Amino acid sequence: MELAEVVSPESLVEPQGRYLADLMGRGVQGTADAVVLPATTEEVAAVMRWCYEHDVPLTARGGGTGLAGGAIPVEGGVVVGFERLNKVRQFDPLLWRMHVEAGVTTGDVQRLARESGLRFPPDPGAAESSQIGGNIACNAGGPHAFKYGVTGNWVTGLEAVIPPGEIVQIGGPLRKDVAGYDLKSLLVGSEGTLGLVTAAWLRLVPAPELELPVIGIYRDAEAGIAAIERVLASGVVPATIEYMDAVTLGYSGETYPFGLPEGDAFMVMTEADGAPPEARRVAAELREALEEDAVAVHAPEEPSDVAALWRWRAGVAFAILAQRGGAFSEDIAVPLDRLRDVARETLAIGARHDVPALSFGHAGDGNIHSTFLFAPDDPEQERRADAACHDLFQLAHELGGTVTGEHGIGWLKRGQLEQQLGAVGYDLHLRVKRAFDPKGLLNPGKKR
Amino acid sequence: MELAEVVSPESLVEPQGRYLADLMGRGVQGTADAVVLPATTEEVAAVMRWCYEHDVPLTARGGGTGLAGGAIPVEGGVVVGFERLNKVRQFDPLLWRMHVEAGVTTGDVQRLARESGLRFPPDPGAAESSQIGGNIACNAGGPHAFKYGVTGNWVTGLEAVIPPGEIVQIGGPLRKDVAGYDLKSLLVGSEGTLGLVTAAWLRLVPAPELELPVIGIYRDAEAGIAAIERVLASGVVPATIEYMDAVTLGYSGETYPFGLPEGDAFMVMTEADGAPPEARRVAAELREALEEDAVAVHAPEEPSDVAALWRWRAGVAFAILAQRGGAFSEDIAVPLDRLRDVARETLAIGARHDVPALSFGHAGDGNIHSTFLFAPDDPEQERRADAACHDLFQLAHELGGTVTGEHGIGWLKRGQLEQQLGAVGYDLHLRVKRAFDPKGLLNPGKKR
Repeated sequence: MELAEVVSPESLVEPQGRYLADLMGRGVQGTADAVVLPATTEEVAAVMRWCYEHDVPLTARGGGTGLAGGAIPVEGGVVVGFERLNKVRQFDPLLWRMHVEAGVTTGDVQRLARESGLRFPPDPGAAESSQIGGNIACNAGGPHAFKYGVTGNWVTGLEAVIPPGEIVQIGGPLRKDVAGYDLKSLLVGSEGTLGLVTAAWLRLVPAPELELPVIGIYRDAEAGIAAIERVLASGVVPATIEYMDAVTLGYSGETYPFGLPEGDAFMVMTEADGAPPEARRVAAELREALEEDAVAVHAPEEPSDVAALWRWRAGVAFAILAQRGGAFSEDIAVPLDRLRDVARETLAIGARHDVPALSFGHAGDGNIHSTFLFAPDDPEQERRADAACHDLFQLAHELGGTVTGEHGIGWLKRGQLEQQLGAVGYDLHLRVKRAFDPKGLLNPGKKR
Repeated sequence: MELAEVVSPESLVEPQGRYLADLMGRGVQGTADAVVLPATTEEVAAVMRWCYEHDVPLTARGGGTGLAGGAIPVEGGVVVGFERLNKVRQFDPLLWRMHVEAGVTTGDVQRLARESGLRFPPDPGAAESSQIGGNIACNAGGPHAFKYGVTGNWVTGLEAVIPPGEIVQIGGPLRKDVAGYDLKSLLVGSEGTLGLVTAAWLRLVPAPELELPVIGIYRDAEAGIAAIERVLASGVVPATIEYMDAVTLGYSGETYPFGLPEGDAFMVMTEADGAPPEARRVAAELREALEEDAVAVHAPEEPSDVAALWRWRAGVAFAILAQRGGAFSEDIAVPLDRLRDVARETLAIGARHDVPALSFGHAGDGNIHSTFLFAPDDPEQERRADAACHDLFQLAHELGGTVTGEHGIGWLKRGQLEQQLGAVGYDLHLRVKRAFDPKGLLNPGKKR
């Protein structure tokens, strides 16, 4: 039987380039024999059954905004895209919950919640393109994960298709459940290698009424990271703790809305949120913690200023990319006492490979976007930037951290897992993979 | 080789009764050929290797405060107790984290955190006896899980021994990590059937400075549950939302510190927490949401009154038990829109089986302790109470809920999993079990 016989004609599209790559870059494009855009969970199951019967690889893709190549069909076969599986099945604002299909964009989930005074807190980049299914597949984070946690913390139930092509319901609109093994958490972050998530029950929370950023500018990383430690010791819980190192600010600082002082600058960006009096109290504590040794403290209060700040923050990655046209931006995470090492060693790695280097990101979670730049028309420079990434992964291992805090292993970090997990842990990882996908057809080559 | 040759002499104790049962009751006591109290992780690994070589069942136990029989060695073999594996390996209050061995009591973890201005939020009952390893094995909850989540939300890393007897480190003092599959969450709540947790990295959070309970008393469940819905719609996030039905208050109300009005009473107990102004603001919102249709609202502010309230709340289960001498108190969880059904049907099930019935518990999480009473010297009544529990589990299935929100499946709820998970989900559950424990020696007869 042909694949065309098990899916509806409008679900089958030509394998165009946009279904074969993601934002990992490195010139990697996959190949596919077919691209299916199912409109129902049953159709996803039919595709997987067909693939399992014919020993054909099956790679799922969401919005294609991944940075680790997780959605690239590196071994050909069938690509399943979720853009047509995009219904909001149920929304119960009074019960703080929503049931959405995998192809709903993160931005739509956030907007729908906001319109009812609620928040879906995970805020990875590219919210307008990325899909909730992809966020779940990567357990996506974002700046506000410091206070609110990552995507998985907000998922209470999943509908998924698992090999050889069966539909399973795990959890639901339940806030607590310890009956079965936590298969929900196992699928979250599994990057399409264990099953294909087709829908999710999301937990929501009342939106904070006010968000007040408080930003400290320091002369160097040492002073900035000391300020982060004072924030942690202050007894308040900020919504976010980000840092942007001096090179990052050198590239992006010109559009920073409140103006940077002359000379080297290392930025620590925090935010207080909550009802207005609470947000103001926390903001005052943050200011007190940040202002020692600061060359400037900015605490915008006007909503337009706060919005301008976050627009700037969202644009930092693009300002970096614009420097040379190419940038590899990774996402290692380390214990908080090793933040200094990441800031310093990122620069040292860049120097060693003779590529511009910088770091910024979710400092409160120890999750830093160390980044190496290159000109896309200079393959030798690109190769050096890629080699720098591999040194960075080694650094994460040495610091007792992880090679990925939010992007996933994907294709890019293949071969890193065994070192990180150790022989016993990696064997356990493979045992779980085989338990779900004995033929190894789901997103082959990834997450290993 | 004998077991005595692989463990130190002081680790081997006689199989006394206290190692063979937990708080499930029902006259179930296990048997054991040996009880080992290892003092090191290596010793735990040695025991498991021995059991795996000799095909001997291995059952782990923490404080023995479980309510589902999860720690009872129903198929004999070796019991491993964790009371001697009880070191605090590291405590970094300024980084909000702690590394403890599995045998440290929940109470000690909470106290140590509190002394540094921090909180370990999970607050299951019996904190002075229960051990953190047991809390992890059951993914224990408690009243404050509504705002703070369950045990697993506060675990960032585990050390565990997995079959055939290998030590594995999963995660660590890391706030984000999406490298491998989420084996940490898989072990959390696995009730000792996948591996034996020997130590954990715990995440902590600054302790709220003030906790202000706000309690509404209503004439019936309908009015009380409507009040809970108004709390959810109010836009604030209480630390806890509990209810105690009229029968519960009939048994325990006499010692309620603020006095109950005459007549039937259904209690909704919430709490605001945070810095003093924020706690007061939230408490005022809670009062406004609760007071409609209330016959009384109590909002104690004196720390001694607040402490008295929580002492009373902790004693409710004992007051219930004292009525007849025996009580089966279960822990189903349902979607929040089905709370009314639980309150009503619990009483109907009790009437059907001619045993006193009541319900109370963590209403905000939909996780209710429906309870059926019996006299221990009346086996027929005990049998009816047990039958009522089975009707309750059926109710949980019908309401789209779970048979266990915090106690676990254990031995008590054997046979319930397949119905709850469905054929595909249950098969997946078993596949995971086999991937970890191919010989099926870890806590046999449980979690299935």
